[in-house]
Amino acid sequence: MSTFIDQLRQRCHTCGNPVLVGLDPRLESLPPSIRPSAPKPSSESIAAAYNTFCRGVIDVVAPLVPAIKPQAAFFEEIGPAGMAVLAGLIPYAQSKGLLVILDGKRNDIGSTAAAYAAGLLGRNSPWHADALTVSPYLGEDSVQPFVDVAVEREAGIFVLVKTSNPGGAMLQDLTIGVSASNRDADTVKRENLASFAGRPVYERVAAFVNSLAESTRMEQQAGIRSPYGAVGAVVGATWPAQLAELRQQMPATWFLVPGFGAQGGTVADIAAAFDARGEGAVINNSRGILFAYKKSEYAEFGAARWERAVEAATRKMIDQLRTDTTAGRLGQS
Amino acid sequence: MSTFIDQLRQRCHTCGNPVLVGLDPRLESLPPSIRPSAPKPSSESIAAAYNTFCRGVIDVVAPLVPAIKPQAAFFEEIGPAGMAVLAGLIPYAQSKGLLVILDGKRNDIGSTAAAYAAGLLGRNSPWHADALTVSPYLGEDSVQPFVDVAVEREAGIFVLVKTSNPGGAMLQDLTIGVSASNRDADTVKRENLASFAGRPVYERVAAFVNSLAESTRMEQQAGIRSPYGAVGAVVGATWPAQLAELRQQMPATWFLVPGFGAQGGTVADIAAAFDARGEGAVINNSRGILFAYKKSEYAEFGAARWERAVEAATRKMIDQLRTDTTAGRLGQS
Repeated sequence: MSTFIDQLRQRCHTCGNPVLVGLDPRLESLPPSIRPSAPKPSSESIAAAYNTFCRGVIDVVAPLVPAIKPQAAFFEEIGPAGMAVLAGLIPYAQSKGLLVILDGKRNDIGSTAAAYAAGLLGRNSPWHADALTVSPYLGEDSVQPFVDVAVEREAGIFVLVKTSNPGGAMLQDLTIGVSASNRDADTVKRENLASFAGRPVYERVAAFVNSLAESTRMEQQAGIRSPYGAVGAVVGATWPAQLAELRQQMPATWFLVPGFGAQGGTVADIAAAFDARGEGAVINNSRGILFAYKKSEYAEFGAARWERAVEAATRKMIDQLRTDTTAGRLGQS
Repeated sequence: MSTFIDQLRQRCHTCGNPVLVGLDPRLESLPPSIRPSAPKPSSESIAAAYNTFCRGVIDVVAPLVPAIKPQAAFFEEIGPAGMAVLAGLIPYAQSKGLLVILDGKRNDIGSTAAAYAAGLLGRNSPWHADALTVSPYLGEDSVQPFVDVAVEREAGIFVLVKTSNPGGAMLQDLTIGVSASNRDADTVKRENLASFAGRPVYERVAAFVNSLAESTRMEQQAGIRSPYGAVGAVVGATWPAQLAELRQQMPATWFLVPGFGAQGGTVADIAAAFDARGEGAVINNSRGILFAYKKSEYAEFGAARWERAVEAATRKMIDQLRTDTTAGRLGQS
């Protein structure tokens, strides 16, 4: 029995890198040859353009990287036609050998969370993503249905812990008080929570996520369990000190690290996301790869050969991570 | 200029009640006459059944209640065909005079949040819901794009504050510490946050949401501003003491109250959600209305006349709220 994270580890070793390409199609940034020419294009024509563009990106990156991360918002934005394109892109990417992490940040209370989990990840899911990002505000019983489905189908989830945006601090960085218990907490809970006094809220979420990860580590060979469980965490590249601390606090948890590139995260910032084996994280880049054709450093290709710019930007990121992080050890064991 | 909440207030007065009917279609609970007969029905046949069922519910409740709340999870669960049905149900309900609050609990970082906001609520949105539920874990800059679109299009949002499920306490009920500041907070922020010491995390979110509500109160007549702003809050019926406290702490914020009925919230529990005018909240009921035909008290109608059970359950809830809460004052001014 393996988990999604075990498959992701394997893919990282096979590819020799931990690059996650974010699929964030945006109408205004599409290469002119693909962008609909009408001043007010229909949803259907935008959806068709997204489909062409994303399949082009998938074709280029499938031999290079372990996984892609379609952002649900950009497909939902253009209506049902966009969702139909998304549903087609997931199996297309999987047929090319890519793992697909759907970035939906979904969640709800128990029975509704179960509908999202079964619907997006389950065995008979019409979307059938390999993994899904999940928001933790609704607490333990809202995350559990995703864990159940993930374990059952060898899929995965990534729970938001410390997000890359500045405003995330509002709630995530609140300091937990000395009597860090809820009014209805039983004694055991109160004792456990006391250890969080003086620490930020996201560390409470981190401990919860790591306990889920720890309990979903699967036996790989007789007596040897995988170092990482089926439940991962989203930890932004833009908070390098916190990223390093969380790597220590969450030894069983694979990280999905957004915020590299366009949002300002550097190679130095994300180096701490990896363990000594060069494992433990995938690093996302969306705009920096998708729309590389717009950058002066790839001007040689021109907008007409935008796929070559995607390839060059992907290869550049792979080289950066290989050279300047422990991820350079991937594929050598 | 008005907001979605102003329209909702008006509809509550016109209908004389604050009942919100949740559209949570579930295959196994559909009336037998609508449920697909195949042992493994296709997505398309389930979607068609959901469409028939939900339009039947809308036809029954449109003359009775101010608004409906489709739950995105149940449509997304069955794939793109389900999303296409959802996109058709929203304008259908609006054409019958209902306001439509899409329950998606969406959110993401800034530019992606903007895609959700424009896509689900915006002027040219292919979904064009009247309001949307939004999750706050990603903080201020993740909520603002929804507020911007809501104000621009006279739409609304409801931010999760205190959810109805037991597990919500894990994060929402954490006590904020004395040094309730994030590491990077400036002095002003630190002083403001000090006032939250000893209080639960959800009260910090409540204060944020109420400040957004306060700043989006629109002038109704010359010099007279609406008592409620465009930004509402989700506060569960299952925590009556906290609901009463939040009503005091959030005077500019309209509440969407889930958890009534199937989740255990009673009329006594939700009475505190209303202000002295009988305004300030809509009370959601999903399963208790949709699948009333299964209850013994509506056995007289039988499964074949399930719409009559929907109507009877809706009227019963309206009567309960009129008799036992200040909502009885709606429509009398």
